Amino acid sequence: MEAMPQLNLAPAPQDLRPYGTPEGEPALRAWIAADLSGLGRGCAADQVLVTAGSQQGIDLVSKLFIDPGTPVLLEAPSYLAAIQSFYLFGARLMVLPLSAQGMDPAALRAEIARQRPAFVYLIPTFQNPSGYCYSDATRMEIARVLDEARVPLIEDDPYRELRYEGAGHAPICAHLRVASWIYLGSLSKTGMPGLRIGYSVASPDLCPLLVRLKQSSDLHSNRIGQWWADRFLRDPDYPNHLERLRSRYRARRDAMAAALDRHFSEIAEWKVPAGGLFFWVKLNCPLDSRELLERALARNVAFMPGEPFFPGSAQPRGFMRLNFSQADGGQIEHGIEILARVVCNGLD
Amino acid sequence: MEAMPQLNLAPAPQDLRPYGTPEGEPALRAWIAADLSGLGRGCAADQVLVTAGSQQGIDLVSKLFIDPGTPVLLEAPSYLAAIQSFYLFGARLMVLPLSAQGMDPAALRAEIARQRPAFVYLIPTFQNPSGYCYSDATRMEIARVLDEARVPLIEDDPYRELRYEGAGHAPICAHLRVASWIYLGSLSKTGMPGLRIGYSVASPDLCPLLVRLKQSSDLHSNRIGQWWADRFLRDPDYPNHLERLRSRYRARRDAMAAALDRHFSEIAEWKVPAGGLFFWVKLNCPLDSRELLERALARNVAFMPGEPFFPGSAQPRGFMRLNFSQADGGQIEHGIEILARVVCNGLD
Repeated sequence: MEAMPQLNLAPAPQDLRPYGTPEGEPALRAWIAADLSGLGRGCAADQVLVTAGSQQGIDLVSKLFIDPGTPVLLEAPSYLAAIQSFYLFGARLMVLPLSAQGMDPAALRAEIARQRPAFVYLIPTFQNPSGYCYSDATRMEIARVLDEARVPLIEDDPYRELRYEGAGHAPICAHLRVASWIYLGSLSKTGMPGLRIGYSVASPDLCPLLVRLKQSSDLHSNRIGQWWADRFLRDPDYPNHLERLRSRYRARRDAMAAALDRHFSEIAEWKVPAGGLFFWVKLNCPLDSRELLERALARNVAFMPGEPFFPGSAQPRGFMRLNFSQADGGQIEHGIEILARVVCNGLD
Repeated sequence: MEAMPQLNLAPAPQDLRPYGTPEGEPALRAWIAADLSGLGRGCAADQVLVTAGSQQGIDLVSKLFIDPGTPVLLEAPSYLAAIQSFYLFGARLMVLPLSAQGMDPAALRAEIARQRPAFVYLIPTFQNPSGYCYSDATRMEIARVLDEARVPLIEDDPYRELRYEGAGHAPICAHLRVASWIYLGSLSKTGMPGLRIGYSVASPDLCPLLVRLKQSSDLHSNRIGQWWADRFLRDPDYPNHLERLRSRYRARRDAMAAALDRHFSEIAEWKVPAGGLFFWVKLNCPLDSRELLERALARNVAFMPGEPFFPGSAQPRGFMRLNFSQADGGQIEHGIEILARVVCNGLD
């Protein structure tokens, strides 16, 4: 079973050779706008900017909003590379705890009133690292809070298509009426990360600013990748490809859930994610997971220690992010068993 | 005659699909290091970072060195997109005039002493917009000044291969002994701009910093473009391709030189560039060239007004950058004739 689509670039047209436009290829932008509109966030093709992966979207957000000392509000935990980018530009990071239902809207309202952030950065769907997914009610309530305060939302949504059960949710930006927003999308989780194609869609006030920053960053995204992405997304087999990917990852998630039940039930807590790539495991005893990683690596098992996903100096211990997408069921069972032994040794 | 190489991506290997490394593909990095070493700037492959065009190199330089108020020294005139990037990050731009021999080393020494810049940004070979090329003597003397003061050099060198006569020069960074340096290279002038592949090579102290900034910007450069670039550069036909490109552009340069002699000799001054893509024309009367552009566009002739290439508010008038690479001899003669008429009308 092959999770990645085939790389067939043979028929790429010669007219992709010269410089392109900063905004991206028109056909791809149109597809993305129609796709997001179908999720409830009505938008036009000229609100779409094709980026070098959604990582570049984060970089452009940093350039647009952050000067040294700029307050930024995000979830704790949050995506490591976003934290690093915001720090790099000098942001002062404010955090609110993330629960399985999402960020608490009342706490968000209070924090915005206390110290107005330049923007709020959220990953509401199968978050990296937690795997949590915001409920519809929380999404709507958060949109209301942001609209009231007119604080811009940066919604990072790379895992949306990797849903293994239940119905999908409209993005939070679909519920906004007046606040500015940027929605970041990726093809790296369902297509080819090596091509570096992602996108941002933004409220009309922010679009020209993002385009100018994009042009200054790298002129435009590579056109071969854009051409491939457009063909990939329009391929009649695309929905089947997504289904194959989901069923592959669902089986691996289930294998990891079963292995955790067998080996971790006495020593940790976790939720089975309804989508995405990660289990977020909280050990009952707050061991330093960076030390656990060293011992796990010596036994050929890797995971991401949880500490770096918490911005600031108060990094709670005992969290581990486990990725289930890269190994098969047998490897997962074997790896989780080894990891449990490493943790239990750490308890001694 | 076809200036651009063919786009044949049919045999691209499937293993380019996953994420790559921030630094770039090893084979391409090795080729670039060997190439620059051949120009006298000895370096190792691990000093090479593959970027999304050399524009991204400029973006990384800005991120590395510039905070609001940081002094940066550059040529007047200088490359527009570099000026814009440095401003975007809040730099305070200091300039020294550029003559046909290059920046004056004594003036550089004095300006560094007066107000130490975070770096000096130079385009010593067939500069954009002036087409000027620094002599070997000036290159060596500038390197000495930078070494003495230990001020980093950013050397932007996208036009190096487009030399139409005379012997090549070693880059300025080849003469440095102690100062830090970043050399920016491009494949967009000789290969395919649409693939967005360029590179930076840096002194060892700066390499890990650039890699971290690259990772934060877009994780890595697209791997298909890197694969193509590696094949292109190693193709036995590559030297012939460069020769074909040079002879095509040389003929167009000569056509523009002849047309300027015919139509501009009474109203302007210029030097015939030994390489690159541009004539830098100074009108005898300092007309606002942005106004001239409007009238030229109405007659289907385009050029770049000179004013924006001068950082700061003191933008001298009456300069025009003329690109000779995109039109054939007949079009050039016709366009220059129209442009002369537009200028003469502007004098009335």
